[in-house]
Amino acid sequence: MNGFIYNVPTKIHFGENAVSHLGDELKNYGKKVLLCYGGGSIKKSGLYDTVKEQIENAGLEMFELSGIEPNPRVDSVREGAKICKEQNIDVLLAVGGGSTLDCTKWIAAAAKVEHDAWDFFSDWADVTDALPVLTVLTLSATGSEMNCGGVISNPETNDKIGRLAKPLLPKVSFLDPTLTYSVSKYQTACGSADILSHILEVYFAREQDLYMLDCVMEGLLKTVIKYTPVALQKPDDYEARANLMWASSWAINTFVTGGKQHEWSCHPLEHELSAFYDITHGLGLAILTPRFLRYCLSDKNVGKYVQFGVNVFDIDKNLPPMEIAQKAIEMLENFLFNTLGLSSTLTEIGINDEHFALMAKKACEGATLQGFVDLTAEDIEKIYRMCL
Amino acid sequence: MNGFIYNVPTKIHFGENAVSHLGDELKNYGKKVLLCYGGGSIKKSGLYDTVKEQIENAGLEMFELSGIEPNPRVDSVREGAKICKEQNIDVLLAVGGGSTLDCTKWIAAAAKVEHDAWDFFSDWADVTDALPVLTVLTLSATGSEMNCGGVISNPETNDKIGRLAKPLLPKVSFLDPTLTYSVSKYQTACGSADILSHILEVYFAREQDLYMLDCVMEGLLKTVIKYTPVALQKPDDYEARANLMWASSWAINTFVTGGKQHEWSCHPLEHELSAFYDITHGLGLAILTPRFLRYCLSDKNVGKYVQFGVNVFDIDKNLPPMEIAQKAIEMLENFLFNTLGLSSTLTEIGINDEHFALMAKKACEGATLQGFVDLTAEDIEKIYRMCL
Repeated sequence: MNGFIYNVPTKIHFGENAVSHLGDELKNYGKKVLLCYGGGSIKKSGLYDTVKEQIENAGLEMFELSGIEPNPRVDSVREGAKICKEQNIDVLLAVGGGSTLDCTKWIAAAAKVEHDAWDFFSDWADVTDALPVLTVLTLSATGSEMNCGGVISNPETNDKIGRLAKPLLPKVSFLDPTLTYSVSKYQTACGSADILSHILEVYFAREQDLYMLDCVMEGLLKTVIKYTPVALQKPDDYEARANLMWASSWAINTFVTGGKQHEWSCHPLEHELSAFYDITHGLGLAILTPRFLRYCLSDKNVGKYVQFGVNVFDIDKNLPPMEIAQKAIEMLENFLFNTLGLSSTLTEIGINDEHFALMAKKACEGATLQGFVDLTAEDIEKIYRMCL
Repeated sequence: MNGFIYNVPTKIHFGENAVSHLGDELKNYGKKVLLCYGGGSIKKSGLYDTVKEQIENAGLEMFELSGIEPNPRVDSVREGAKICKEQNIDVLLAVGGGSTLDCTKWIAAAAKVEHDAWDFFSDWADVTDALPVLTVLTLSATGSEMNCGGVISNPETNDKIGRLAKPLLPKVSFLDPTLTYSVSKYQTACGSADILSHILEVYFAREQDLYMLDCVMEGLLKTVIKYTPVALQKPDDYEARANLMWASSWAINTFVTGGKQHEWSCHPLEHELSAFYDITHGLGLAILTPRFLRYCLSDKNVGKYVQFGVNVFDIDKNLPPMEIAQKAIEMLENFLFNTLGLSSTLTEIGINDEHFALMAKKACEGATLQGFVDLTAEDIEKIYRMCL
């Protein structure tokens, strides 16, 4: 069991009308605010007006960067950083889902350096400083609101790279579950697949860590499994949306990780998928995760699958271990593809094996992906093929 | 379901030799350190020398306040504050269990005001500022290392009063499970009873909150129930001590509370017990909690007991609800009094009904304690009597 540092100082305002505290919080970080958002959905929903009113009533000056895309691109980071430098922006406000938040966080870092934003990913340039970032979340999925990571795509090189950097941690995040009432069934399902994957990446680990954290992860998994169908059926169910929203943050704010240091297994595989095909991240994870779990299952690690099946899916603990394991994977598939209604194969979403060899090589960076089990490019290609 | 603010910026160094980072962290808060501790146990264990070396190697000046007592007294707070003022102390370092930490936190507040330290409790004087506090934990119990509360006793008035104040939140806490290897069986058992109580005070609530948080609480309860017997049997079992230590912090750092606003039920009753008799806090809670749960059980709230029994003690969910509830309370009693070996009655520890009426009145401040259910002084006195 390894030691660890837990350090997550993000302040959270949770609940209906959480955004009513936005102006007061923003004021603590300066005068000039750059509001970052994606498409027009926050204008349609009225959230844009609420946010603008908060900023104006707090006596702050507002600038805007709109059009941040899903799987946000390095060009948006460059554009945001340029505004920050030209306008001497003090604080960034991201309003949207994980893509908007990730992009805004990297704008905050890029605003503090002279070099090109992509150097953070191609050259792993140091991130020593960043403008303060506050976030208003509108989609429960990536957990970006309470962690220091962000994933940026570069379409020129077919790269999609995630990176953690302490200065990127949001100072304050506003989590109002009612802001997710208007999220479509499809995006709700993809978001939940993303949350599940974040937990499973840590739960299925080569290292054992604290039992307590396994219990917490099982609780988060059960929460997502219980409440996603409710949110799909009744999009304005506060309890369902609130549970999903708070679970999304805790799935990936480092708490459940403890001292585990292994690499993640499915996310690198999915990043190649959406880098090559620009698909929704959560959908790619949903298709990959059960196949990955099936591929990795062995006599050596079956115990973890049993724990998962019994504690999360309530499978009879007296069945033979391998049977429990297989059943657990099937129940996960059933949840993702039937209950959530997500596409179950890459073929269904128009992806064939054309780039599998190259994607597999990139996913493990030409070496071995040291996640739950060691995966070579050959292994990864096999997992991709299981998804056809 | 209420909204809430989650704001717990305490940085945690967790694991063996966590204290090796102490000097580096202390340096961030100034030059003059007041080391606060209790009896001589940290000298016997060698921890005192380790801490001293860290402070000296960081080039800091060390002052000392020793002799902080269990159920720490306001006189110790006064004494510490006096040293802080006279020596212009920059930062406080608490090394010990919850009592030492609580006392140090209130010294940090008292050092910033001119009035007497007891005014914080008798007059609820404002706490607007405090010296920074860092902690090295040697006992898993109160959670003081990651929250902003502290309980102080005043023997002159038989008062024992807990109060939360944001400025008291420790900046950095060092949690090394090996530092709890030398904790006696009795103190280990009392510590775990304290952790369980912190969780149950929130779990058994008049308000429902997020299902996710109930799952987390059940995970924490299972952790304490699984690992306390291991720690009793094998005091140097790292896994057991680590699970208990991290569970103690999360039981009461506000995370599991969500938006619940009800008062706690057992702690006020216990504070009177240890104010009048100076008994160990965790022991008082162990004796009180099952009786409290039995007294409050009704057709209206039996569902929560069923959830507790099924999810924590794995009781057959097909039994009649009232039977599950009774069985759950019995299993809790069995855990506290047989597995942990704690005294099961007040009579056993030499307490009779002499002060029950007065204690009951003080516990509810002469009105109604609005915890899990409403409790009048009469109700509380009945609960005390169930403990004889």
